[in-house]
Amino acid sequence: MTSPDATTTAPAPSGPRITAAGRRTRDRIVRTAAELMFRKGVAGTSIPDVQQAARVSASQVYHYFGDKSDLVRAVIRYQVEQTLQGQQPLLDRLDSLDALRAWGAVVIDVQERRNCEGGCAIGSLASELVESCEAMRADLVAAFDRWEAPIREGLRRMRERGVLVPEADVDRLATALLAAVQGGLLLSQVRRRTEPLRAATDAAIGYIETFAA
Amino acid sequence: MTSPDATTTAPAPSGPRITAAGRRTRDRIVRTAAELMFRKGVAGTSIPDVQQAARVSASQVYHYFGDKSDLVRAVIRYQVEQTLQGQQPLLDRLDSLDALRAWGAVVIDVQERRNCEGGCAIGSLASELVESCEAMRADLVAAFDRWEAPIREGLRRMRERGVLVPEADVDRLATALLAAVQGGLLLSQVRRRTEPLRAATDAAIGYIETFAA
Repeated sequence: MTSPDATTTAPAPSGPRITAAGRRTRDRIVRTAAELMFRKGVAGTSIPDVQQAARVSASQVYHYFGDKSDLVRAVIRYQVEQTLQGQQPLLDRLDSLDALRAWGAVVIDVQERRNCEGGCAIGSLASELVESCEAMRADLVAAFDRWEAPIREGLRRMRERGVLVPEADVDRLATALLAAVQGGLLLSQVRRRTEPLRAATDAAIGYIETFAA
Repeated sequence: MTSPDATTTAPAPSGPRITAAGRRTRDRIVRTAAELMFRKGVAGTSIPDVQQAARVSASQVYHYFGDKSDLVRAVIRYQVEQTLQGQQPLLDRLDSLDALRAWGAVVIDVQERRNCEGGCAIGSLASELVESCEAMRADLVAAFDRWEAPIREGLRRMRERGVLVPEADVDRLATALLAAVQGGLLLSQVRRRTEPLRAATDAAIGYIETFAA
């Protein structure tokens, strides 16, 4: 299949050779699909919806994505990057209880600014897609792993630095904190107020504090 | 509109007069729709799907439910009752930390027996439907309130009995515990193992324990 865009450059990390313009078109398709799926769900977003909103042809969509499933998997990866981007500076420096709380405050602030509409992009995709097929579920496992890893690493550093006692099970604590954030995001989305998310993260971080040295 | 079933009895608590046979038909439609929507999502379940699986006619479905939205709202109420039914004896007797843990173990056991497939029926409906319309969101608020109330009442009794200190904010603790369960259920569903749910509930109950008198 030939590229619908000119000036072929270096091959993309994965997939067919792609031009710089092609990369921009592909990115626009993914970004547009992500926005539509965030607002209307994956089932509520058709390929023609994406074409129209991204101002591309059907052949352009199918050039970059074999089918809707391919596009959805690209959207999962995109939403993980987007979600983590705003948290990354803090996620990479989780070395104290105050740093954990500062990260939690950023997650809450994002919801506050959105009036809690839409909830968690990753959590919503997970809930809708987890039972659809094993490949999709594997992508969702990877998405949550990617989010959990820096939390776990932060807790591990805190344990190494003696902020947490050696007995602190950082794997379990990281999972518990991510679960609290996910559940808090869902309850906050349903109730349209950040208090559930605040209560959930305060409790999870408060529990981590019981392992403070 | 006349009932498609004979022998009219007392009016139902809400909606039109309904016969005993009609009540059974209506219940079968809701139960069947709930099962299909649990497996395939609300968007993935059509009224003809429900008709076929419940062995009823279109006119029967539309006799009891004006449209799909009415049916979905009945499914939300049904799933809350179903979810709480298995937990109710323990939910009604949350008067100690051990009782909290026993309730958590029941929630985990349900997932264990299902190999974590399907996740939380209420959480899945919430995630899919919360942004669809205000009436649906109000039903979901009511669903989570109905689940949270006995947890909060249990914690309140624990505080009254002196199991928890007077400073324990039972509203926030109940919300945090429900959020932990919701987030834990989602991560367990994605990862197909109960450990995330265990970690999340252990953390939330462990945090409540920091308010033990």
